[in-house]
Amino acid sequence: MSDPTLHGYFRSSASYRVRIALALKAIPFDQSPVHLVRDGGEHLKPAYRAINPDGLVPSLTHSVGDQTHVLTQSLAIIDYLDEVYPEPPLLPRIALDRAYVRSVALQVACDIHPVNNLRVLKYLSGTLGITDEQRSAWYRHWIELGFASLEKRLSVDPRVATLVFGDTPTLADLCLVPQVWNARRFDVPLDAYPTIVRIAGHAMSLPAFAAAEPSLQPDAEPPPHSA
Amino acid sequence: MSDPTLHGYFRSSASYRVRIALALKAIPFDQSPVHLVRDGGEHLKPAYRAINPDGLVPSLTHSVGDQTHVLTQSLAIIDYLDEVYPEPPLLPRIALDRAYVRSVALQVACDIHPVNNLRVLKYLSGTLGITDEQRSAWYRHWIELGFASLEKRLSVDPRVATLVFGDTPTLADLCLVPQVWNARRFDVPLDAYPTIVRIAGHAMSLPAFAAAEPSLQPDAEPPPHSA
Repeated sequence: MSDPTLHGYFRSSASYRVRIALALKAIPFDQSPVHLVRDGGEHLKPAYRAINPDGLVPSLTHSVGDQTHVLTQSLAIIDYLDEVYPEPPLLPRIALDRAYVRSVALQVACDIHPVNNLRVLKYLSGTLGITDEQRSAWYRHWIELGFASLEKRLSVDPRVATLVFGDTPTLADLCLVPQVWNARRFDVPLDAYPTIVRIAGHAMSLPAFAAAEPSLQPDAEPPPHSA
Repeated sequence: MSDPTLHGYFRSSASYRVRIALALKAIPFDQSPVHLVRDGGEHLKPAYRAINPDGLVPSLTHSVGDQTHVLTQSLAIIDYLDEVYPEPPLLPRIALDRAYVRSVALQVACDIHPVNNLRVLKYLSGTLGITDEQRSAWYRHWIELGFASLEKRLSVDPRVATLVFGDTPTLADLCLVPQVWNARRFDVPLDAYPTIVRIAGHAMSLPAFAAAEPSLQPDAEPPPHSA
């Protein structure tokens, strides 16, 4: 079994989730960056479409024996990694706790992230012709709606400690941290979500989360506002 | 362990997914309908918010011992049901096959469904003031984009037979069937997706899928165009 290759983009939060999983499990992996903006988007070109017809990142290619398998959808990739490289586990042992962790992950992955995906924002600006201001308001709206209900939930759940499930990194933290990173990138104020901010802050102090941070990836670019 | 209660809405495709899972596993359950339209939406009222602060359906309440647990997020609920009521399993035995099934499910649950969620459509019409025609085009666009890549994938994957994974109902079919139902409801032409249509058609011939169909639920209403 050779090292897997992650086809992703430094700023893609779905790629970021998978990078954290790989780092937590100390799985050596190669990165094959797919630039989502340059040249109209490398993800839409034939070279990447041959790997993932969806044109979405990330994909993980993984050779087992003489076969190369292509895995898509970040949460499916993470579940696969958790099954094939079980240590440390990314889900709790008890079914009800697993359901809790999965539901927090899905609140981010289904309710917040897809609505603010690059292709959705492009449709809003391009096809519907909304203004930059409307686009920023849209972006904030879905993060604020999602974070408000997540904060309400996490602020009272006894399972929350330094992380979403006690002090053990789980799938939930893997989804939460990149979403907080996204929110900060788009200057969404986070004062109303102290539990979320505290959890993300603690997670970022852990080496695996820190190593997966977008600015440290091989395809990272300086932020547009910097010199 | 008492019978679980599903808090859902007959037309909600996330509720529909969970109904199919419950039916496949022959789990007796009660339904507590939450009307998403009437009175500005029962899901936004305190009674339902007390169950799920998100105000999203479905939720599943489940009493184990003297505790009542609230489960949210359809895919987390289905995973939980699959773990607690393992027969018949909704995921294949082999990790790579599980990743395949999960990724098909997530293509629907993350890439198609959230962007066409009721609250997103409301924001487009209300806050952004788009026309009904633009709203229909939006709806079609995301289904067509998602179904096109799913069709490309399913039409060549050797694991596809009468269903997404051989002839065994899996999480993938549970997500696909309600999405096809949605597409039909909004008159999205499906001729370009013969594999998807064939799989959904076969699934609907199975009793568990048929029993979960929206029009057969206790809160079902006749379609707006009917007499």
